[in-house]
Amino acid sequence: MSRRFDDLSGPQVHERITTTSTIVLPIGAVEQHGPHLPMSVDHVIAEEVASAVVTAVGEELDLWLLPTLSISKSNEHAWAAGTIWLSADTLMGVLLDIGRAVATTRAERLVLLNGHGGNTTLLNTALREIRLATGLRTFLVHPSLPPAYGGTSTEDELGMGIHGGLNETSVFMHLRPDLVDLSKAARRVPEALAENRHVRFGGSVSFGWLSNDFHPDGYIGDPTGADPELGRRLFEGAVASICEAMAEIAAFDFGR
Amino acid sequence: MSRRFDDLSGPQVHERITTTSTIVLPIGAVEQHGPHLPMSVDHVIAEEVASAVVTAVGEELDLWLLPTLSISKSNEHAWAAGTIWLSADTLMGVLLDIGRAVATTRAERLVLLNGHGGNTTLLNTALREIRLATGLRTFLVHPSLPPAYGGTSTEDELGMGIHGGLNETSVFMHLRPDLVDLSKAARRVPEALAENRHVRFGGSVSFGWLSNDFHPDGYIGDPTGADPELGRRLFEGAVASICEAMAEIAAFDFGR
Amino acid sequence: MSRRFDDLSGPQVHERITTTSTIVLPIGAVEQHGPHLPMSVDHVIAEEVASAVVTAVGEELDLWLLPTLSISKSNEHAWAAGTIWLSADTLMGVLLDIGRAVATTRAERLVLLNGHGGNTTLLNTALREIRLATGLRTFLVHPSLPPAYGGTSTEDELGMGIHGGLNETSVFMHLRPDLVDLSKAARRVPEALAENRHVRFGGSVSFGWLSNDFHPDGYIGDPTGADPELGRRLFEGAVASICEAMAEIAAFDFGR
Amino acid sequence: MSRRFDDLSGPQVHERITTTSTIVLPIGAVEQHGPHLPMSVDHVIAEEVASAVVTAVGEELDLWLLPTLSISKSNEHAWAAGTIWLSADTLMGVLLDIGRAVATTRAERLVLLNGHGGNTTLLNTALREIRLATGLRTFLVHPSLPPAYGGTSTEDELGMGIHGGLNETSVFMHLRPDLVDLSKAARRVPEALAENRHVRFGGSVSFGWLSNDFHPDGYIGDPTGADPELGRRLFEGAVASICEAMAEIAAFDFGR
Amino acid sequence: MSRRFDDLSGPQVHERITTTSTIVLPIGAVEQHGPHLPMSVDHVIAEEVASAVVTAVGEELDLWLLPTLSISKSNEHAWAAGTIWLSADTLMGVLLDIGRAVATTRAERLVLLNGHGGNTTLLNTALREIRLATGLRTFLVHPSLPPAYGGTSTEDELGMGIHGGLNETSVFMHLRPDLVDLSKAARRVPEALAENRHVRFGGSVSFGWLSNDFHPDGYIGDPTGADPELGRRLFEGAVASICEAMAEIAAFDFGR
Amino acid sequence: MSRRFDDLSGPQVHERITTTSTIVLPIGAVEQHGPHLPMSVDHVIAEEVASAVVTAVGEELDLWLLPTLSISKSNEHAWAAGTIWLSADTLMGVLLDIGRAVATTRAERLVLLNGHGGNTTLLNTALREIRLATGLRTFLVHPSLPPAYGGTSTEDELGMGIHGGLNETSVFMHLRPDLVDLSKAARRVPEALAENRHVRFGGSVSFGWLSNDFHPDGYIGDPTGADPELGRRLFEGAVASICEAMAEIAAFDFGR
Repeated sequence: MSRRFDDLSGPQVHERITTTSTIVLPIGAVEQHGPHLPMSVDHVIAEEVASAVVTAVGEELDLWLLPTLSISKSNEHAWAAGTIWLSADTLMGVLLDIGRAVATTRAERLVLLNGHGGNTTLLNTALREIRLATGLRTFLVHPSLPPAYGGTSTEDELGMGIHGGLNETSVFMHLRPDLVDLSKAARRVPEALAENRHVRFGGSVSFGWLSNDFHPDGYIGDPTGADPELGRRLFEGAVASICEAMAEIAAFDFGR
Repeated sequence: MSRRFDDLSGPQVHERITTTSTIVLPIGAVEQHGPHLPMSVDHVIAEEVASAVVTAVGEELDLWLLPTLSISKSNEHAWAAGTIWLSADTLMGVLLDIGRAVATTRAERLVLLNGHGGNTTLLNTALREIRLATGLRTFLVHPSLPPAYGGTSTEDELGMGIHGGLNETSVFMHLRPDLVDLSKAARRVPEALAENRHVRFGGSVSFGWLSNDFHPDGYIGDPTGADPELGRRLFEGAVASICEAMAEIAAFDFGR
Repeated sequence: MSRRFDDLSGPQVHERITTTSTIVLPIGAVEQHGPHLPMSVDHVIAEEVASAVVTAVGEELDLWLLPTLSISKSNEHAWAAGTIWLSADTLMGVLLDIGRAVATTRAERLVLLNGHGGNTTLLNTALREIRLATGLRTFLVHPSLPPAYGGTSTEDELGMGIHGGLNETSVFMHLRPDLVDLSKAARRVPEALAENRHVRFGGSVSFGWLSNDFHPDGYIGDPTGADPELGRRLFEGAVASICEAMAEIAAFDFGR
Repeated sequence: MSRRFDDLSGPQVHERITTTSTIVLPIGAVEQHGPHLPMSVDHVIAEEVASAVVTAVGEELDLWLLPTLSISKSNEHAWAAGTIWLSADTLMGVLLDIGRAVATTRAERLVLLNGHGGNTTLLNTALREIRLATGLRTFLVHPSLPPAYGGTSTEDELGMGIHGGLNETSVFMHLRPDLVDLSKAARRVPEALAENRHVRFGGSVSFGWLSNDFHPDGYIGDPTGADPELGRRLFEGAVASICEAMAEIAAFDFGR
Repeated sequence: MSRRFDDLSGPQVHERITTTSTIVLPIGAVEQHGPHLPMSVDHVIAEEVASAVVTAVGEELDLWLLPTLSISKSNEHAWAAGTIWLSADTLMGVLLDIGRAVATTRAERLVLLNGHGGNTTLLNTALREIRLATGLRTFLVHPSLPPAYGGTSTEDELGMGIHGGLNETSVFMHLRPDLVDLSKAARRVPEALAENRHVRFGGSVSFGWLSNDFHPDGYIGDPTGADPELGRRLFEGAVASICEAMAEIAAFDFGR
Repeated sequence: MSRRFDDLSGPQVHERITTTSTIVLPIGAVEQHGPHLPMSVDHVIAEEVASAVVTAVGEELDLWLLPTLSISKSNEHAWAAGTIWLSADTLMGVLLDIGRAVATTRAERLVLLNGHGGNTTLLNTALREIRLATGLRTFLVHPSLPPAYGGTSTEDELGMGIHGGLNETSVFMHLRPDLVDLSKAARRVPEALAENRHVRFGGSVSFGWLSNDFHPDGYIGDPTGADPELGRRLFEGAVASICEAMAEIAAFDFGR
């Protein structure tokens, strides 16, 4: 049976959405990812992962899927015509509005499943704002946390395959092979950054960056060795990991 | 070949999106539509119509499809738990942000293809705001204009099948038969309204309404006779009509 | 006795403004109307019509007149020095503030009597926002609905006498003959637009326009045959029609 | 010849409004003034004074009158049903919008002629905001500065006839005798306040107040001795004083 | 014992902050003050005065000191690189947020102790906004009210020593002698302004000004005769006067 | 010589602040930290660390210190009377305003030195917003990154000494021994949280929390073993680490 929240009728919301329900909002982006990937990468991945998770454990954990928010805050790519982005204010407004509306149901948990690293800090801020405004328990999940925000990257990329790099390209080759053109890919790793101890992706000092600060091509990593089989493993790993996380979310009570 | 805007890579935007291109943004809603229809009605219809139009004439007219904005201003249903809505401010912010971003391409035309009647006046306002801010030529198209805003309804509904009524239900039965439950439908026509000469849907006097102002069930019209074959004809008519309109849009120059 | 709301003292509000009262806010504009008309056209007409209506049926229908809001959203004329306009945000703020204040009285009905077509969609949006925020029953009335928003125009203007055209000029000649200079008027009808089936004033597709999109003179219609006697008939017709509408408004209960 | 700004046509703005022109915006309020005065007091006075000033010296000093802004920030009377007020944000938006629009003409000077004391500090702030945003020279003029903001009051009112007191009531009796009912007036002077050296109207310490902080009747002063002849003298004095001020304004260059 | 509000622990707030407590927020600025003074002048003075007042009468009057808000609205100096300023909106937001938070304690009085004249009108507006929103009794105190807002200046400066002039420079020489370089000071008095009767600092007509409107050096007054001994007297006078005012504030009840 | 930015005069800014200069803004908070610590903890630590860093390497690295922003976004403690906090919107406004102002100097680098973990994600978002708006290179530095955002905590606290725990209490005992009352401290570690693999501080899933979600006392960690000598080592370690980071910041060019 459908686990899409909006396949419910209005009156069904009262029956089916209860205190055990968790509402899942996939969030993607429409933004340049270099010449080898389409602009749809982030929302495709967010939606595919979310669907797979809900298919796998939705019934068991009482998950409900909202339509994907395909456009979000991609202003690190504002320089690239075609990137369609919301301002920080607008995206925060969208999230607070959705939180306010979800809180009119009996559900007590809202998960943001985010495919776009550039949203991470704003979504993290939104978790608290929504919780304070509505009382909802709020969570942020990434298909795979980008290294810039504490995740991991391959050694060969010096930990900097954060936008259009090996992993993301591989996952997308698994999901939409026809939309990837590896012949256009090159190594775009800001090597010198790796020499820094503090001011580097995942270092103790964060820094503001635009995607063309490193190279005019605007992607960061080395997708040249991307491979759909690696992508499949990463995708399935992300899904499995999030399924596990969803079980913790469904039971989460702040350690009380 | 794909006519999805976000299937383009960043560099391809520079080649493929030109002064002849028209960008199409489908807009739907997640809102209660009575007990016989799911909350997804408006975004499903907007997306299906948009896809059909772009499939039919996208190549010829150089149309490019953005991902559907599935959540919009549904505050006439704010009383109904499960309706997920953006405030007027937030939706205007989303539209202005998208307009600003589209204007960084060479495209000169942006079409809002709107499946939710409750957005109509705000989107109309946005047309001018975006044009003034960016110079884009902006257009608003409806799969079928709701009677409340000047469209037509069936005689039997006294011109008031504006939300979950005969036509909308029929179209949805054509598109997603499994998600309609006609056994729950009833006639919900505010008959007395038809006696008014001025203050009525489509009359000379507009009025502010919430969907439960007329009846606690929150839908307006008589879906009891809904029929997928009627729905098919309406859907195909809407697509044909919009294809014709898109040709005018592609050539539009203010009559100069 | 005075039916001006603000001729009441504070304590009188408690006695005189009751659940049967309807509050009327005339809304005009200060914006260019071509070389033959002053910038005051819209607020003069709104105020004159509102006064005539309140004089005719104010006592009978318990109407109360607020001071005219003379400046509103005229940004389609932003290019024309001298046009004094509020942004969409500001005007919405003004309307919501006024709605909030009116809702502190016992009155249950608020009518926006709008003389400026460019406000129409925003005011329509405001009807719902005010209703949702305050519970007021809200209405939008036009002296004569401009064709661009669904009204009618003369045949000779091909349905496009929407700003400074035959009807508006005639009405103004009736009200302020000394402020009209017909010798400066010319035919400014975007003829080619009439050939469109969809993208035209009153067509199925709305479009964003600025008043100089059609012609640098910035008026739209053919005022050359304007005539105070026609103006008198149109003015009196508008007043009579609105008086009739006010009776429906005073009795309006959503057809329940 | 008319000195109303909006009696000009769009093209006339280019000819008639020049670098010597000063634009005058009267600002009033719709707010309770006790049981003896109507809510219209402030906008009537602002408009009458402004008209008299423009009649007297408009031609000589090249003054142009905008329509009166009749509703403004009266939230010290928010407790009183019928007071129609704009929030601080909204009023600031209105003023910045008007300033932006005036700055598209060749005029270099904008005068706010304010009849409502409660606006004073916000308008003062707006003077700088508008100047910084547009380069306009901006001025704030009061028919008579209320004591709370540095003006003077009669001795008998202990300097506290600041809202509906002797002077204001007298001026209004001169302008609209039929709308004043002195039989309802009483002495409403917060006597104990006069004993303060710092925290008092016009003292070294400002304090936030609402009009019912002093007495539930919401007016402050002693209107019982109000007299139209005193009102006439005050009105004519205010007009004469502002005419003199306008000459300084027209020549003002920051003492350079 | 410490009278710094933030030296309290959370639980101590419940014991120590009571209905007799007055919370004091010093407000300064970081803005150019000419070549003879550092940009810190206003926040140093605000903090020193506030500390001295709380030391003198804090225990007796139950005063509690918040950390100084060192950056505020200095946009009259926006032209001068290094001036760090908040917009009017931002500063109002800061004040409303602080008011909201203070109102969660049992304290009923909030004093803004403002060292920067350019904030005066906005802070005055905030007094009412905070009072209306929270019920707090709100007060605005200046170390010495700048002449532009009704204070006094020395005769030799023609009443115009309002920014970096004799008094302010003297007070700062008393407080931070090492940070003053009188050798760079000159007389910067807009003499011609003194000839105006209305449009002058402290006159009946306010005007919008930026600090470089009078002279490119951006200070206003004649600091050449500044003297730490005069500064000491002024400083001690300000402290004594505010101590006296604080006693009135602690007892203030609107003269009821 | 002083390295306080605001000890410069306006004209000195032009000489002393150059393309090699880095501007440092310490950011603290006024928020409850349990019964054993005062509300000032975060701004005291931020200011002490920033001062020590600028004293140590300010001359060498051309650092300039702004006054501490003592109040910031502490809404996870909104439930605790006395916590003085800015909304997310207000704090973002403050940061953007400061960034805009700093960008009028020749400095190219702005460092936020943040003592309050609850600000981290919003400040991270601000880094990009400021960079995109002004071109500044922007950095976020923490005296010690709280575990909730990727830092480390002691083993005994199960990695959860994130607010008023062992380390923070120790550092504060080093800096302000008189303001700490260890006798009131207890162990407040949400033990069960440590069993989670994903949803935990520093786990792959972030969650929205308020400080009383875990325990009504509102602090998180085990300060009972706090010790000024440990505090001294942590403080000096943080200073040394930030000095090292500042050298990287001063040379940072995105690895190009």
